[in-house]
Amino acid sequence: MHILVTGANGFIGAALCRRLLELAAQQPQRWPLERLTAVDLQTEALPAHPRLHAVQGSFADPPVLAAALAEPVDLVFHLASVPSGRSESDPALGMAVNVQGTLHLLDRLKAAGSVPRLVFASSIAVYGRPQAPLVTDDTAPAPTLSYGAHKVIGEVLVDDYARRGWIRGCSLRLPGIVARPPEPNGAVSIFLSNLLRELAAGRPFVCPTSSAATTWLMSLGCCIDNLVHAAQQEFLTRRTFLLPPLRVALGELAEAVGDAFAVADVGALVRWQPDPWVEFNFGSYPPLQLPAAEAAGFRSDGSLGALVRAALAEA
Amino acid sequence: MHILVTGANGFIGAALCRRLLELAAQQPQRWPLERLTAVDLQTEALPAHPRLHAVQGSFADPPVLAAALAEPVDLVFHLASVPSGRSESDPALGMAVNVQGTLHLLDRLKAAGSVPRLVFASSIAVYGRPQAPLVTDDTAPAPTLSYGAHKVIGEVLVDDYARRGWIRGCSLRLPGIVARPPEPNGAVSIFLSNLLRELAAGRPFVCPTSSAATTWLMSLGCCIDNLVHAAQQEFLTRRTFLLPPLRVALGELAEAVGDAFAVADVGALVRWQPDPWVEFNFGSYPPLQLPAAEAAGFRSDGSLGALVRAALAEA
Repeated sequence: MHILVTGANGFIGAALCRRLLELAAQQPQRWPLERLTAVDLQTEALPAHPRLHAVQGSFADPPVLAAALAEPVDLVFHLASVPSGRSESDPALGMAVNVQGTLHLLDRLKAAGSVPRLVFASSIAVYGRPQAPLVTDDTAPAPTLSYGAHKVIGEVLVDDYARRGWIRGCSLRLPGIVARPPEPNGAVSIFLSNLLRELAAGRPFVCPTSSAATTWLMSLGCCIDNLVHAAQQEFLTRRTFLLPPLRVALGELAEAVGDAFAVADVGALVRWQPDPWVEFNFGSYPPLQLPAAEAAGFRSDGSLGALVRAALAEA
Repeated sequence: MHILVTGANGFIGAALCRRLLELAAQQPQRWPLERLTAVDLQTEALPAHPRLHAVQGSFADPPVLAAALAEPVDLVFHLASVPSGRSESDPALGMAVNVQGTLHLLDRLKAAGSVPRLVFASSIAVYGRPQAPLVTDDTAPAPTLSYGAHKVIGEVLVDDYARRGWIRGCSLRLPGIVARPPEPNGAVSIFLSNLLRELAAGRPFVCPTSSAATTWLMSLGCCIDNLVHAAQQEFLTRRTFLLPPLRVALGELAEAVGDAFAVADVGALVRWQPDPWVEFNFGSYPPLQLPAAEAAGFRSDGSLGALVRAALAEA
């Protein structure tokens, strides 16, 4: 079994690589992993392992992709993308990587003829500023950033290539995954991870939203569970899913951190200082109803306490 | 005013060119048309007119597009595409024209910097086999043919380029437009036009659906009205619309043809011979509720009688 991970050095990609190596060690019959090819611009976060082959460069660069696909591949996790802020500031780069790179990857997998599985990491950015009173499995995408537009295009391509039998694939719309490392990654939503980490350590935090602001969150571990689950399914009709997040008010999230980490008077540590733009774009997420995603076996963290503990256990 | 029409030699494109030349003659203040550039693989259906400049070739061929855009353009009707059957049988061509060609056109318009208007002809193929019990302005695309997937991608690109201020654009999802000329154009749905024409002429017709089969139709004239209307609007939020078709049962359609053309006992002329695949894919269209499209000024034919008369007046 040869697995390829693009964006393997990222927050999610590196955790996924670690999980895949664990699965191969613990369940060698189910995960007979011979080679894990990990592609990214940098590769220093990747675990050292005899079966892990790091390929440094952009997956959207044809020679890099050719090197990554030098051995026939059975399963691809396509996580790499130019993130939202960068795709707005450098639209040509976003288009080249997120759209043309994804298309080139799909065409290479099609040309190989072995019908590999592919799990494409899409994003809740496809919904744009969430306007619907309720988001369901069937809510139409309406991106308000080029990054979200690129993700919709990726989903449509994955679905069409899978329908035609060229790959066996699906797209998962990832909600906010916490807790990201403190380094800025170009995403405004990093404040959510910072809130978790600072409050858990008993440090004060200035939050750019109100305490009533609502967001959709999932812990990194739960996200990896869902990615690994997707890789083992056959999707014959619906191939695009919103991963079921927890919808949480930020005030409740702060309280849950206080409870989980025994921080006295956590409320006094937070100053709610709403930035209207952040509140509108990242603090107004509607309720969810996702029976199709749940029937397909995708899971949330279950409870806010579980989410907070899982999110910070990994940090 | 310089207008560019891609797919100008097609059924809809040629009618649009005729209408634009009429508008320029009748309302020269409102339509100060100096140049109408008409691009298509063939150009023989185009009206001869001193302001019409035919450019023969594929708009997706960069030198052809460069010739078409040699003069600064104010308005583009982007109608050209590789149709559904052909995009299934020749996916590389469909991708090159419908996706890469559209992207290249948008990038050329962006690079020109003049923020032209653009009306993109999308299709109800974006919905795939219609599964929802009701289709609304917000029904999510779920294409089941590559052609529909390509149209979704075009819509997403047009919306993103317009949001960024690079064009002023919108996408219109065209329903079945009747009555198309008898020549096969690669679309299965041609039987709808054939039914109209044959019955109006009092000739027998074998219909590949049941009489209860439902479809969404619009006359060519009504479609052109909507395209021209779109070109005069500013779309600031929603930029993708399903043009409001009439939803008709094919038995009712046959009766309406009989009434409009005084064909005695039209029911006896039709043999209903349902092909399960055609019935499923082209004869199961759900009801519609399109308040956003109607609020934006888009119109159906109003009545089945009006649709039948308009459809056959043009044939």
